[in-house]
Amino acid sequence: MSVDASRLRLARAYLSRVAEPPAPALHRLISEVGPVEAADRVHRGDVPEPVARTTESRRNAFRPRDDLAAAAAIQARLLIPEDPDWPSWQFSSFIAAAAQGSEDAVPPLALWVRGDASLAGLVERAVSVVGSRSATPYGEVVATELGIGLAELGVTVVSGAAMGIDGAAHSGAIIGNGRTVAVVACGLDIPYPLDHLSLFRRIVTRGGLVISEYPPGVKPAKHRFLIRNRLIAALGGGTVVVEAGIRSGATNTAAHTRALGRPLMAVPGPVNSAMSVGCLALLRSGHAVPVGTAAQVIEASGRIGIDLSDTPEGPRKDTDGLEPHALRVHEALPERAGMSAEEVAIESGLPLSRVRGLLPALELAGLAQRGDEGWHRQRANR
Amino acid sequence: MSVDASRLRLARAYLSRVAEPPAPALHRLISEVGPVEAADRVHRGDVPEPVARTTESRRNAFRPRDDLAAAAAIQARLLIPEDPDWPSWQFSSFIAAAAQGSEDAVPPLALWVRGDASLAGLVERAVSVVGSRSATPYGEVVATELGIGLAELGVTVVSGAAMGIDGAAHSGAIIGNGRTVAVVACGLDIPYPLDHLSLFRRIVTRGGLVISEYPPGVKPAKHRFLIRNRLIAALGGGTVVVEAGIRSGATNTAAHTRALGRPLMAVPGPVNSAMSVGCLALLRSGHAVPVGTAAQVIEASGRIGIDLSDTPEGPRKDTDGLEPHALRVHEALPERAGMSAEEVAIESGLPLSRVRGLLPALELAGLAQRGDEGWHRQRANR
Repeated sequence: MSVDASRLRLARAYLSRVAEPPAPALHRLISEVGPVEAADRVHRGDVPEPVARTTESRRNAFRPRDDLAAAAAIQARLLIPEDPDWPSWQFSSFIAAAAQGSEDAVPPLALWVRGDASLAGLVERAVSVVGSRSATPYGEVVATELGIGLAELGVTVVSGAAMGIDGAAHSGAIIGNGRTVAVVACGLDIPYPLDHLSLFRRIVTRGGLVISEYPPGVKPAKHRFLIRNRLIAALGGGTVVVEAGIRSGATNTAAHTRALGRPLMAVPGPVNSAMSVGCLALLRSGHAVPVGTAAQVIEASGRIGIDLSDTPEGPRKDTDGLEPHALRVHEALPERAGMSAEEVAIESGLPLSRVRGLLPALELAGLAQRGDEGWHRQRANR
Repeated sequence: MSVDASRLRLARAYLSRVAEPPAPALHRLISEVGPVEAADRVHRGDVPEPVARTTESRRNAFRPRDDLAAAAAIQARLLIPEDPDWPSWQFSSFIAAAAQGSEDAVPPLALWVRGDASLAGLVERAVSVVGSRSATPYGEVVATELGIGLAELGVTVVSGAAMGIDGAAHSGAIIGNGRTVAVVACGLDIPYPLDHLSLFRRIVTRGGLVISEYPPGVKPAKHRFLIRNRLIAALGGGTVVVEAGIRSGATNTAAHTRALGRPLMAVPGPVNSAMSVGCLALLRSGHAVPVGTAAQVIEASGRIGIDLSDTPEGPRKDTDGLEPHALRVHEALPERAGMSAEEVAIESGLPLSRVRGLLPALELAGLAQRGDEGWHRQRANR
């Protein structure tokens, strides 16, 4: 690593610690003077008032070398916007969203990353799958199956590694031999959620990534989950909400998704399930498209779409190909015994001449038979 | 009954029998020459070719007086367009649909009716609730609850009296002390479906109606269910599909509803339930609005709407009213032990001065407490 690259990374590590994300004023300062100069100025306290307000409490409290060492100790690294595998394209949506007045629409200053894969490579074709922590068995089954299906179609599953839907989506992606990216809301050294430590290990060993904009040691907190959600929304080509109660954080990720102009999808569920109320609300508002399969997700996710999903087909019936009049004659026929052509005409309401023409056609199709007592239906042997 | 009224009813009874509905050519002839003259001409065989084709097989096979007597024997009557309780407004939609090229868009020539209520009165505020015969327990629960809810809001429930969703919707309306209209696809004397005979009795004794455009003796047949569906679609101010497999007749009623320009609604269900596949397809096509409650049905059914349904609200939390910075300070506080204001500033990333202002505010709100070891969170006593 060159001295410059090393200074850049140290500066970004410091900036990543010094302001609580999102930090629009600090982000603007970095754009203007570059990260090294910005870090120096923040450290000296020589910054405009809005930057001072968001940095004064931490500017002397931490050393970036300690943070980088703490990350290295857990096999993590710092990914910075100057790196080639920074997902620039995905984060560029924040610019448009910020122009629309979305205050939180700020890309991260840097990302702490566990795993060797290229983040930009993984999210080239990616969908975010999110939902309630207190998911139902239905929701977990659907999230797992979506994860498997997306993985099998070569699409990376992005989620928040929470209990419930998030965990099921990540697990599904791993089951489907795909890659998955977990975006967490605390330092990578914080064991949260405790029940997902083995999931985090599997994500990393199976070619995925666990990422965070929070430096080592930062604890999970409600506002951090909400701020983190913008990154989940930004890294997927679209977001699927699988299950969401009326207060679920998933509806916040949905709002970020809309603000970023990405396709929003929701999985319908039983209308009398509290965990599907949030999805029903998204569907009723017209903001989300209903999806039930990975193919439908890909169809709805524009940019990553390859081809349209198949329309489901029901089982074929013997009478499927019949034109309406033939169907009426077939319907008029008794199962057993027999009926004259005249009786069939009266029953079906069709002219006798038409009935006389259709009965032999049905016989040829194996759907009618003439017996001693007249015409009756035949069960086709197929 | 005057002689003229009696002749009119006899003519309509004859016409109702002589052609299998829908009979657009016969309908046009009646519009031109009136029902009495039209009946005479059909009987004589003195009609244009398209009318002859649809009437020749039955024109000498039946006597309308027998049909009226058979109806009277089961406490049924013949309702004709010339009667004041004919639902003219509802059926007028067929004219517009026919102009759009919908071949089946023909009103009935007459309706056989069991029950004393006025059909026009009952359907003044009505919604059609339909769905699969092989419904799941989930679908039956939702259909019953919609029936109850609509009844309680004074809305008549129209359906097809089939097993499954239809029966549950009718039953719900009765449970909710409302009125319900069953539109069947066979003669009113035909005991079909056999398991619903007591339901039919309850519908009639509780102020509802069982109606059919088919004269006594006509058997149920697949094409008749499909043709009947246009009347279900026409008599409701909108149609709700509760559950539908991919081949369900309910999707046919949905198509009629759209052709008539009426609002179409679908109840979402589990995406892995075969009985919700049809509803998901309707929702994905954008043709149907998702609904889960009677209030949402009424909101979506334009014409019959009174007011908007309530947006569901989640439970209130102690921290609900807090502005974002106060929430961040609250989140930074430990549950037990204590933290200095400086530590809270670092943890929350907010300026110390701001933290010093917010901590007492949180204390006043009963959400923070200052102890010997510093600040910690307080569980609000409410």
